[in-house]
Amino acid sequence: MSDLPKQVYISEEGPREGFQFEKKTIPTVEKVRFIEALAETGVREVQCVSFVDPNRVPSMADAEDVAATIRRKKGVRYTGLWLNKRGLLRTRLTPLDPMAWVGLYASEAFSVSNQGRSTTELISSQRDILAYLAEHDIPLEFGIIMTAFGCNIEGEIPITRTIEQIERLFDLVAECNLQLPVLKLADTVGWANPGSIIRVLGEIREKWPEQRLGLHLHDTRGTAMANALAGLQMGVDYFDSACAGLGGCPFAGHTGAAGNICTEDLAFMCEEMGISTGLDLDALIACARMAEEIVGHPLPGKLMRGGTLRHFR
Amino acid sequence: MSDLPKQVYISEEGPREGFQFEKKTIPTVEKVRFIEALAETGVREVQCVSFVDPNRVPSMADAEDVAATIRRKKGVRYTGLWLNKRGLLRTRLTPLDPMAWVGLYASEAFSVSNQGRSTTELISSQRDILAYLAEHDIPLEFGIIMTAFGCNIEGEIPITRTIEQIERLFDLVAECNLQLPVLKLADTVGWANPGSIIRVLGEIREKWPEQRLGLHLHDTRGTAMANALAGLQMGVDYFDSACAGLGGCPFAGHTGAAGNICTEDLAFMCEEMGISTGLDLDALIACARMAEEIVGHPLPGKLMRGGTLRHFR
Repeated sequence: MSDLPKQVYISEEGPREGFQFEKKTIPTVEKVRFIEALAETGVREVQCVSFVDPNRVPSMADAEDVAATIRRKKGVRYTGLWLNKRGLLRTRLTPLDPMAWVGLYASEAFSVSNQGRSTTELISSQRDILAYLAEHDIPLEFGIIMTAFGCNIEGEIPITRTIEQIERLFDLVAECNLQLPVLKLADTVGWANPGSIIRVLGEIREKWPEQRLGLHLHDTRGTAMANALAGLQMGVDYFDSACAGLGGCPFAGHTGAAGNICTEDLAFMCEEMGISTGLDLDALIACARMAEEIVGHPLPGKLMRGGTLRHFR
Repeated sequence: MSDLPKQVYISEEGPREGFQFEKKTIPTVEKVRFIEALAETGVREVQCVSFVDPNRVPSMADAEDVAATIRRKKGVRYTGLWLNKRGLLRTRLTPLDPMAWVGLYASEAFSVSNQGRSTTELISSQRDILAYLAEHDIPLEFGIIMTAFGCNIEGEIPITRTIEQIERLFDLVAECNLQLPVLKLADTVGWANPGSIIRVLGEIREKWPEQRLGLHLHDTRGTAMANALAGLQMGVDYFDSACAGLGGCPFAGHTGAAGNICTEDLAFMCEEMGISTGLDLDALIACARMAEEIVGHPLPGKLMRGGTLRHFR
């Protein structure tokens, strides 16, 4: 386990991933309460909302209201996800921190079905977005390859295809004289296993040894924590996660779409392995319980039930 | 990941671990229905019941009835857990396969609180049991060190202590000219992390390179699958697990005692990594759903909701 990082950056996506997925309407004030509590746990970034079509994702219709209501804590970034320029422009009218990213799908079919655009169309629209970011001095934060490990429509994704899409992403940002501070691989619909994580990341590190890598994992089939371990062993020091294991992708094409890897479970594992997260596990547990109370049903996180080991030591 | 085994043996403990933990009374016929369905999934062993004091564990008061009712499938072992000679003798009066084992706790305090006996007392009573097994030609199957990674009473367990208890176990069986086909390490109350798994197993393999090792993992704090991966990477090819993630230890001293690692989630990860389990994942998913129906509440297994990848390939 020699490549284990000494510390990891955890981006909290619970409010966005989680509340987007819930069928019942979560009041704006409850979303804000949860976001403000998360900001007290030591996280450096909270993805609060998504600026998407409210007809398609009604649970995010109050994105602007949420963004305007949050009392900000210094040192924490509050971001909103957008998927096209219209969404980006909506974000810019709120007090949220800009989140500047580019991304492609390893699965062409999923790209079309989830985002309504082919790779070529995505590249074209993202070229436009990169120009906008440059014009407004917004630094690019990350690139992401979605469905990097498999897809319910196309099935198995060959590594060569994932690498090809990464090359397209690098070419796109190079056109604008930019680099990717982080390249994220997303296991959008839960296809990854520790073996494929190690194979894909190994290939990427072989080709781009200096590239910082991140993982966006879903626990659809129970492998998220093992996949995170495989990532850590490959030197990954950047994870997206969701408090209490909130979340899921409503358009993933199957009802079992599970939440993101659970923030406090991941942070617990890291801390127990001597990898620093900067997070307060007990504060995260309190947030996870709040999340269950807000959504009104049990969430998959384990640490909130098992508790930390602090009191036993 | 060069030490990954080509195949793993998975011992199904759901009926015993799971129903023991449930507060509501599970009818005998339901237990038997679940056990018989599990036997159709390719498992080679089902731990059906425990022969313990019915005053202490009322849910196991029908152990003899369950044992007598099961219609056995050829090639499957049906066992019952016992913790002392009285329990062993009860097992022997049923049609169940004998399960011959010895075990010690790494935590002395847990040994006394969970089993009412110190290490010295356990060794003495197990000497008597080994004599009984020899007399009746029952081959010894495994040794186990419980609370091998930590304990809610004593806290951190130093590796030296775990090694010391393993040496005691080896000495005990050597006295009777026996060996341990499998040495299991149990993370009884969910203290293990991938780092401690690798350290403890590494130390054991250093001292006893030929010893076959097994893991008995609980998912108390969300690390069970990552711990299993760490075990696989250390060459472990024997796991105890519970369908649907049933189970928990009712005497673990905290209400959050979680179930065993989930059989079908573990088997899915292994199969996806090219490690053969001999198990039918879809049949296991059907069993997991049956388990939820029988206990009347959601269980933690993920694969039963996410589904296998077979239909997408």
